[in-house]
Parts: sequence; structure tokens; C-alpha cells
Amino acid sequence: MRHTPIPLAALGLVLLAPVRADEGMWLFSDPPRDKIQASYGFSPDEAWLDHLMKASIRFNSGGSGSFVSGDGLVITNHHVGLESLQKMSDAHKDYPGDGFYAATPAEEVKCLDLELNVLQSTEDVTARVNAAIPAGAAGEDAARARRNVFAQIEKESHDRTGLRSDVVTLYQGGAYHLYRYKVYTDVRLVFAPEQQAAFFGGDPDNFEYPRYDLDICIFRVYEDGRPVHPEHFLKWSVKGAVDGELVFVSGHPGDTDRLLTVPELQFLRDTSFPYMMDMVKRREVLLTAWSARSDENARRAKDELFYRENSRKVYDGMLAGLLNPAFLAAKAAAEEGFKRRLSARPGGGEALAAFERIASAQRAIALDFRRYRMLEVGDGFNCDSFNIARQLLRSGDERPKPNGERLPEYSEPKRDTLELDLFSDRPIYPDFEILRLGDSLTDLAERLGFDDPTVQSVLAGKPPQQRAAELILSTKVRDIAFRRQLYAGGAPAVQAARDPMIELARTIDAESRALRRAHEAQDEIEQEAQATIGRARFAMEGTSTYPDATFTLRLSYGAVKGYVENGAAVPSMTTIGGLYRRSEEHRGREPFDLPPRWVERKTALNMDTPMNFVSTCDIIGGNSGSPTVDRKGEFVGIIFDGNIQSLPEDLYYEDVQSRSLSVHSAAIIEALRKVYDVNVLADELVNGHR
Amino acid sequence: MRHTPIPLAALGLVLLAPVRADEGMWLFSDPPRDKIQASYGFSPDEAWLDHLMKASIRFNSGGSGSFVSGDGLVITNHHVGLESLQKMSDAHKDYPGDGFYAATPAEEVKCLDLELNVLQSTEDVTARVNAAIPAGAAGEDAARARRNVFAQIEKESHDRTGLRSDVVTLYQGGAYHLYRYKVYTDVRLVFAPEQQAAFFGGDPDNFEYPRYDLDICIFRVYEDGRPVHPEHFLKWSVKGAVDGELVFVSGHPGDTDRLLTVPELQFLRDTSFPYMMDMVKRREVLLTAWSARSDENARRAKDELFYRENSRKVYDGMLAGLLNPAFLAAKAAAEEGFKRRLSARPGGGEALAAFERIASAQRAIALDFRRYRMLEVGDGFNCDSFNIARQLLRSGDERPKPNGERLPEYSEPKRDTLELDLFSDRPIYPDFEILRLGDSLTDLAERLGFDDPTVQSVLAGKPPQQRAAELILSTKVRDIAFRRQLYAGGAPAVQAARDPMIELARTIDAESRALRRAHEAQDEIEQEAQATIGRARFAMEGTSTYPDATFTLRLSYGAVKGYVENGAAVPSMTTIGGLYRRSEEHRGREPFDLPPRWVERKTALNMDTPMNFVSTCDIIGGNSGSPTVDRKGEFVGIIFDGNIQSLPEDLYYEDVQSRSLSVHSAAIIEALRKVYDVNVLADELVNGHR
Repeated sequence: MRHTPIPLAALGLVLLAPVRADEGMWLFSDPPRDKIQASYGFSPDEAWLDHLMKASIRFNSGGSGSFVSGDGLVITNHHVGLESLQKMSDAHKDYPGDGFYAATPAEEVKCLDLELNVLQSTEDVTARVNAAIPAGAAGEDAARARRNVFAQIEKESHDRTGLRSDVVTLYQGGAYHLYRYKVYTDVRLVFAPEQQAAFFGGDPDNFEYPRYDLDICIFRVYEDGRPVHPEHFLKWSVKGAVDGELVFVSGHPGDTDRLLTVPELQFLRDTSFPYMMDMVKRREVLLTAWSARSDENARRAKDELFYRENSRKVYDGMLAGLLNPAFLAAKAAAEEGFKRRLSARPGGGEALAAFERIASAQRAIALDFRRYRMLEVGDGFNCDSFNIARQLLRSGDERPKPNGERLPEYSEPKRDTLELDLFSDRPIYPDFEILRLGDSLTDLAERLGFDDPTVQSVLAGKPPQQRAAELILSTKVRDIAFRRQLYAGGAPAVQAARDPMIELARTIDAESRALRRAHEAQDEIEQEAQATIGRARFAMEGTSTYPDATFTLRLSYGAVKGYVENGAAVPSMTTIGGLYRRSEEHRGREPFDLPPRWVERKTALNMDTPMNFVSTCDIIGGNSGSPTVDRKGEFVGIIFDGNIQSLPEDLYYEDVQSRSLSVHSAAIIEALRKVYDVNVLADELVNGHR
Repeated sequence: MRHTPIPLAALGLVLLAPVRADEGMWLFSDPPRDKIQASYGFSPDEAWLDHLMKASIRFNSGGSGSFVSGDGLVITNHHVGLESLQKMSDAHKDYPGDGFYAATPAEEVKCLDLELNVLQSTEDVTARVNAAIPAGAAGEDAARARRNVFAQIEKESHDRTGLRSDVVTLYQGGAYHLYRYKVYTDVRLVFAPEQQAAFFGGDPDNFEYPRYDLDICIFRVYEDGRPVHPEHFLKWSVKGAVDGELVFVSGHPGDTDRLLTVPELQFLRDTSFPYMMDMVKRREVLLTAWSARSDENARRAKDELFYRENSRKVYDGMLAGLLNPAFLAAKAAAEEGFKRRLSARPGGGEALAAFERIASAQRAIALDFRRYRMLEVGDGFNCDSFNIARQLLRSGDERPKPNGERLPEYSEPKRDTLELDLFSDRPIYPDFEILRLGDSLTDLAERLGFDDPTVQSVLAGKPPQQRAAELILSTKVRDIAFRRQLYAGGAPAVQAARDPMIELARTIDAESRALRRAHEAQDEIEQEAQATIGRARFAMEGTSTYPDATFTLRLSYGAVKGYVENGAAVPSMTTIGGLYRRSEEHRGREPFDLPPRWVERKTALNMDTPMNFVSTCDIIGGNSGSPTVDRKGEFVGIIFDGNIQSLPEDLYYEDVQSRSLSVHSAAIIEALRKVYDVNVLADELVNGHR
């Protein structure tokens, strides 16, 4: 599933191969009009782009979506909405498992802590950012100066427009753009199918094709207690996607690493991925085993388990790409070629030296990587209670500082986001917390060594499981009133509370911050070096390329198109009939079982209705829920996954077998009307209003 | 499940605490008569012991069993028989899933490569072994001398008696005993329940109590094409185990580490277990995901997946014990106390110095541990084809050498065992082989580093998955005629064949053997040091103790007795009625689903029949399938597991909550008669003959 962006190492820069047909996650401010025109005889104009941009939505929980009615309906994937569904569920009401439909506005259920962003405008602020970095400043000095000017620009913009304002680093520092968003935080659930239908085939069919998933979830956005009426929303195409036709994807690809240099790829292959795979597989085993003990355990662990299984497939696929010597050899050859061209240019020596700095910074990052992950990223303390405790501790310490000197997540412009998360009333289950904390404390002791002084202070003379139970059962951070009180009282109140979990966070805080500073200093060296190489590259290649993904709005394009696998043709579309056949192949057993409603309504459905389809559009994690639109800008489907061949796409695009997967717009209407009996909702989608 | 012995590091020696009530896996030649008498007012005599010994059976695949009729019936656990059931299955006949009953002798199905051993006598050969080690010999010299004298003693005994003859190292080299076994290789399946009934509750309930498993499998042993008529077999107790009564367990505990020194425990905690846990969890995820893709995948992976899930619980449990600072502190204090007593004794300095040698050897072993596991143990080449290829390569190289200089598994006395395995016609599935080899080659590249020269030669410029496919699809080692031809032709034939998998084994063979030599040299230093400490200990403590387990026959004793958990009493027995209630709690969903036959026959069954029971008998992996007998020596149940509290028992025994689990003899008869309609078989068990 193309869900939450996968955080990888620092990004690289050198473009190593010419852009392929249909490749690219393009800026709306600089779309590849000529390339689209050349391949498909169509060129999007400003109005077309502006409409699509303002109808596109970022889910800050890690995904994309779009407005699809003038009365504020938003569609995304079920697996993007899952976190919200999970948070509104309890032992009595299982939104992910049962599905949901609000027949009237009064029945719509408010999400607990979901923030949606809608991009309104972008502005190039490169010159101002660069001017703010003192000549010769490097490392932490440059980083602080950059953080400061970011914060200034963001604050000015926010004060002036009232819009959320983020400075985004593009082209690895070749450019800085200011993005302004309308922010919505009152988001209510209208419709979700059963997870069985949304994620039919479960983990076994995840990242596979052919597929048959109704991976959608529909919300309505409110402001001041009333539905919003967005000026821009997508017209629904009843016919939907057509084989061979041009389509676009407008969404928020999270993070790509296509420009990494060879030492950075080696770091991923030799340090980062082996660590991440051990962690992800360890947690998958933990959650799978615990889920099997009871239905209620399974319900509580569902979204985290889904995320782990999903990550495991992604890491397996990407590592397979990195362990392909042909890929790395081609990268190395292209990098050598680029360096030769650089050395032939006046001033190219500066960029060549930058390559060396990247290699050296990467080695430094690798040295402390495990410790950095365990303590600062928090892999050793995998539970909600620890995260809240650390937020309370650090907000007390950070908020008295000037804005530009704070850790970015505690700066003023991020305050709403922080408070939304910190005061969320999502359920936190002590037994599930103990399970995860106990296992991650065990992992901490294994990875850093039992005799390590930090491990010893963390465990405080107890076995990890016992220490976890003691911490979880004695901390008060699950009480929201307690959180509010400490947050309002700041550091003195936090100190006075002597809460065991907060004190644990304090125990490691000095070391953890030092690890972060060291990591970010090297990261900063890399970013500067990348920016240096980036400027040299622009001088050579102009704007013929797109920047690596940054979880900001991008435009992809391509054709609805099948492919060949093991000598057999895989058609571009599946049908609703195929869903029933796939279920029968597995004798209806989990996760190939159909919800009862689908079994009952089988005869009412048109079996030839297109269900899912593939296209060559270039997507990555974060694109989940992106609208797929045709050249008229109409909604013909919704992105929900890539096939197995697309897994190394974080590192390189190919269009031979690699494909994006969408749910077809016709399947959505067919299911709403004939399976779920929600004609009112189907009508609103088709008509664009209630 | 108390199945295959877990191979751990070299054993330690220092007894750190007095033996607790009911503790111990005692030699039949030296049972703790006084202790049993004191606790239970009973003392087993020679005839009682001899009868039980000769009715007890070792399953060389990793378990225990017993003769239960004069016509050669043998009972063990379903999970001990599972490997054999799996090997006789194919896509058309699923013995583990469907269960089986042979109504007539002609229908009994022969196992492919199963060897059973029945102990006939033991003999103390300590003096002869010690005399054969030249004074002052150490390391590899001492090891070779010891291997030589072992091989001599074993060969003489085998030539004289025709019995399999193994010299067993006891008390860490404090004593050496010669064990003589009758060997049976014609073993035929008579009865197996469905795995659903045998392993009801699956992985979630594994190592838990209360339990409701019919974990049995019944074979008949043949010789010269006719059933054997053993002189010694166990009389069946129809009443079975009774709460509060004394019971004995006679079986083959695989491996305990209760006498490890502190540096050895630290090695397990810091090096061995973290490595093993990553590997086991990685493989569990691989097999689980592949199994979910289709029913046939699941069938093929079933026994390996079971083994991985089982190992994961064991490692989690044992690591939890090691990460308990109280346990390690107690060990350290006891070790210090022992050293103080040693230093007060004349000649104690020798044993004190031995402690230092163990610590130093352990550090050396830790250095190369990962490489040793990957290459020599074969973790980097996890597939049957590689194992066969290496056996062919090494048998060609080893068999021309004098017996005592060969790797032990290629010595003459082990020839039958080697050939049984090498020429087994068990099914080997290329797709499953590629899956496992591809994943383990990836693991090899991750753990040793992609740029490592050995990794580079192994991968030969291909991505791991592609290299795995190429090797598996081109090797001929799955063809038994090919294997026979190369085995007969020796090294020249092996060389001439140029088989790609054998050549892969050759590529790593020099380094792999060097790693083994280095490992075994340190191991030998440890063994010598342990023997030194062992002798000092005997001088101080006499024969009041039992030796660590060595997968040889031992006697445990204890009471049928419940325990208290979280303040609530857990009774000693469950009933058949409890089985149905547990299934209903989980709405009959996997793995809590009952076989159709159990659903149909529910009303016929006596719900109050005891199903499983717990006792304080001291067991460990390898004890699976051991008969539980009462003071009359009658079969009252069969060991199949321990509870979750018993998992650290490899390291220390406790009798507060830790319990052994048995299937009750009454449940077996009730199920055979009323669920499976096999009165003929039930009559044979109850009457002791057909």
C-alpha cells in the first residue's frame, strides 16, 4: 500500500539517467507540458492546474485525497483513513471491521486528531533563504541560520494570510519554495466499507496485481460546525478510466531517493535497511502472535500490524533493488560520467569536492545510526505513552526559547499540529502499551548491549517486561487533563509531577539530543554539499528534471496500460466478477473472505464493472488516496497501491512492468448503490452536490 | 512444544545452587532414590528401571517415545511425527492436515528416513577416554585424541554387539559413558489425528496452559518386514494420571545449560540470542507471508513454520530469563562463592584458572560467531539442496581419511545415519527452495556485508533472488540417482559433475572448515576447562547432582500438581469439555477450529474425561513424546509441552509456576473410540497386544 512516507536517510542529488517517458513527480508550478504534449497531444493550462491543485488534499497522517463534492465530501483510501477509524473505535464499535455509513449529517462521526491541508499557492523564496546564510557558514551554524529564516518566512506568511505556511526544500537545496495551505481539522466520517472489502486479499495480495480492492473512505469537511463548500472539487466521471488513455495523478508522494550518490546507496544497503528489516520483522512477529490470542487483541493491533506488514514488503522490495549489482554498477558509472563532465567545467571542482563531503558525512552517520534510531527516533521505546511523555518534557524545555532556536516540531507555526496530537483523545490500551514497550526495551538491550550505561539506567535493575509494566501502569500521561496541566505549567510543572515515564524520557534526553545534533550536523553537511552539486547540475541540465518527493503536491501522468509478466499479458483492468472468482479460489478463507453484504448482493451487481486498473503514472508512498483524473480533469479513479515490480521505485522509475494501482470510479458507484444501498451518497458524488 | 533440542553454545559446568525438590534429569544408572523416597515414599528398583529404559525410545529426528504394545506399537507426539508425516505427503495427500488411520497392517505407511533408538545398556568408559589423552595435550590435539578414542570405543562395541554405540560426554567431561542402542529404521504410521486436534490453539496457545491438545502419533516398528515384539513395553493405565500423585518421565532431554558460567551466559545474552532471534523472526515472517498466498504453499511450509514459531517463543522466554538482572546477579554471587570455596582447597587453583580459560574462549567464539553461523552452520544457505550438496562434497573428501580424522558426521559408525538422510526420497519443492535460499542469501549479504569477498563469490554478480533461482533450477542434487552416483564415485565423481550447488559449497568450504576448526578449538578449550572444574566439583559435591542434558535417556520425577497465576488457581487437569468451550470462545476460528469429526461426535463424548495435565517433572526440548508413568510403571500420559513459565528452564529449574504438560491417557482412549472409531487400536493399547 502506498501509505505513509518511508523515512529514509538524507537525500542525494545527482541525476544519473535521462528522465524516461511518463517518469516524474512534477511541481504544479513547473509541469512538463512539452513532454505530455509530445507523448499524448495534450497540454494542461493554468486554470486546469489551479483547479486540480485546489481540489487536492493532503492527509497529514500520511496520504492524499481530493474534494469530490461542492458540499465538502473528501475521498481517500480506506488505509489512509484507517488510523482515524481505529481511533474512533472501542471494544463495542469496530469501524474498520464493520464499515460505516452516516445516513444524515448528524450521524457523521468527527475524527479525533486529523488535519487536512489544501495547497493555495506557492512562492519561490530561494534568494531570501540563501541570502540569510552567512558566507562561509557550515554545519550547525548554517542549519540554525536556515531554520531561523524558514521560521521568519513562515511566521510572516502565516500572520499575513492566516494560512499554514511551510518552506519546502526542493532539488536538495537547489530551490526553496513557500507553500501556503488552508487547514481543516473538523473532518467527519461519512462512509467506509468493511476492511475485508477495502483490503480484500490482505497482506498476501498487498502490492500484487491483478487486484480487487474497494480501498476508499469518504469524509466530509466542516468549518465552524457547517460543511465547507469548496470552490474547487473534482467532477466525478461515471464512465471512469479507459484502457490506453492519458491519466494524471495529483497527490503527495512522501519521499524518493532517486538522486542518491553511491555512498548513500551503500549506507542504505549496508546499514539502514538491515537495521530496519530486523526491526520491522521483529514487530510484525510480535503483533501477529499477540493478535492471534484474541479477537480484541487483533482489533487493537490492526493498524500497526498492517503498517508493519506493509513496510516489510517495501523494504524487501527496495533491498532487492539495492542488492542488484547491475543497478549499483549503472549508478556508479553514471556518477563517474557526471563527475567527468563536472571536472571539464569551470568551477566544477567545488561540486566534485561536495561528493567527498557527502561520502564522509555518510560514514559519520552510519557510525551512530543504531544508537540514534534507538534513542532519538525512539525505536527502543515503542509505545504511545513514551511519545507523549517526551512531548511534554520537550515542550516544557523548548517553548521558552526563541522560535528559531527550538526543535522545529516545537516552533510556533507547528503549535496547532503539536497540540492536536498531544491532546488527542485516541484510546491507548495499557496491555498493548506494555507489550510493545517490553519488546522494544528488550530490543534496546540487545542492540546497544545490556551492560551499556544508558540501557542500565533505562531498565533500572528490572527485566524489560517488568520495567515496561511498571512504567505503563504508573505513568499518568494517558490522562488528558494531566497532559494539559503539564503543558500549561511548562518545565516546572513537568518536573514537579515526577511522572515515571517523563522521568524516563528525561534520563535519556541529553544523550538523545546530542545524537540528534550530531546526526543533523552531518545531515546539514550533506544538504549543503547536495545544494552545491544541485546548482552545478542546474547549470548543466536546466529545468528538464523534477525534484525528489517531499510529501508536497506533485503531478504525475501516464497511460492506463497493462504489461507482460512471465510471458503472459496482464490486462490493465480487473472487474467485480474477478473479485468473486479470487475469493472462490481461496474457498472464501481469510483474508480472501467477502463481507456478508457482498455475498448477499452478488446477483444484483454488474460483474463486468471495472474494479481496479493500472497505469504508468509515477507514484510512491504518500500518494495513497490521490485522485486519478483524465484530461478533462474528471475523477476516474483513486490511487491505492503499486505492483510488486514498483517497489524499488523509491530509487528508480521504470515503465516496463512497474505500475500504479487505482480503484476505478465506476466500481465505487456500483458498490455504493448495489452493495451498500447508499444512493444518496452516490448521487452526491455523481451530481457534485447533495 | 518440547520438540527438537535447541543447539546452544558449549556447555558450562559449575553447579550454582542446591538441587530443588523434583529438580533433575537423572541418569538411569544413578537415579536419586533417596530423594524420591524422601518426597514420595517410593524407590524404583533395578527391574523397574530396566523395564522403563528398554520401553523408552529416542526419535533421532528430535524427540522421545515409548513402546506401548507387545506387537510393536510406538507412541510419540504428533509434532514429533510431523516431519515424517510431511515427508510422506504431497499435493494429493496431506497426512498432517487430514490425519490417518491404518485399519490393517497392509495400510500402514512406511516413514522415509526415520531412525529410532532403544537404549540397551550403558557403561562407564571415563578411565579409558582420559588415558587416551596425552598428558599436556590441549586444544585441537586433545580433541583429535578424544575423537580417536571415541571412534575406537564405538567401533569395537558396534563390531562386538551389532548395536549402535555412542560415547556420551557427561558432567561436561567429568564422565564418559558408552550408550548402546538397538536401531530401528522400518517405522510405519498407524494413526495420526488431524493437526487441528493435535495442535489445537496453534501458535497462540503453544506453551500456554490450560491446554486441550491431542498431541499424539502412533507408529508400528518392523524388522525384516514383520512387526517387532519388544520384550519391554509400557502397560496402559486406563484410569491415567491422578491429581497429587507421583509420576515419572522417561525421555531424551536435548540440551540444558544450567551450569553455564557467567561469561557464557553473557555470550548467550549479548551475542548468540540476539543473532538467533533476528534469524528466527525473519524466517517466520518469510514463511507466514508465503503460506498465506495459497493453500499449497501453506502445506509445504507447515513444519518449518511450526518450528520457527516454536523457536521464537523459546528464545523470547529464555532471553527474558537472561535479561532478568536478579537471575544473573544470583548466578554471579554463587559463582563467586564456589570460587572462594575452591581457593580454600588444595589444588583448587587449577579449577580457578579453568574459569579464566572459559571466559577467554567465550570471547574468541563471540568474535567469529556470526560468520561461523552463516557459513558453517549454513544459516546463509537455508535450503535442502545446499545441505545435500555439501554432504556430497564432504563425504567425497572425508571418507578416504582414517576414521578418527574425519568430521564426526562422516565417520564409519555414523554411516547408516548419513546414508539414510542423504538418500531419503522426501519431496523437495523448487519454489520453496528458491524462496528460502533467496532470503538467506539476502541475509548473508546483510550480515557479512555485500562487499565481503566470500559474499561476492557466493552471489557471483547476481541479485540474491536471481542467484537462488539459478542455483536451485540448475542443480541435480534433488535427483537421488545422481546423489548415489556421486556418493559412490567419491571426490573425483563429485568434481567431474560440476554441479552448480556443489560448486557453491566448494567455494566456501575452505573458509567454512577453518571457521569450524577455530570454533571447535575454542570449544575444546572450554570442554577441558569444564572437565577440570567438573572434577573439582565432584570432589566437593559427590554424586548428589545430575549432568546437563545431552539428548540421552534421563529420568525425571514429580507430582501432578496445579499452580497459582495472577492470584487465581490453575487446576492440574483440563477436560474434553474444556476443549469445546475454548473453541466456542474463539467462535471456532482458526487455529481454534475443531476438525469436523470432533464437531459431529461431540454428544458421544464424556465431557469430564481428563484431556491434558501438568506436573512438576523437570523436562526440556527433546522430551516431547516421553511417556509419563506412575509408580507402577504404567503409561498415564505423554509429555508434549511446558507452560510459558517453564521457558527459561534451559537455564534453571523452578517448581512454583513452571510445569510440564502431558496428554492424559484417558483422553487418548476416549478419542480413539468415540471420535475416530478405531476400537481395534484402542484395544491393542489397553490389552497390550493385537
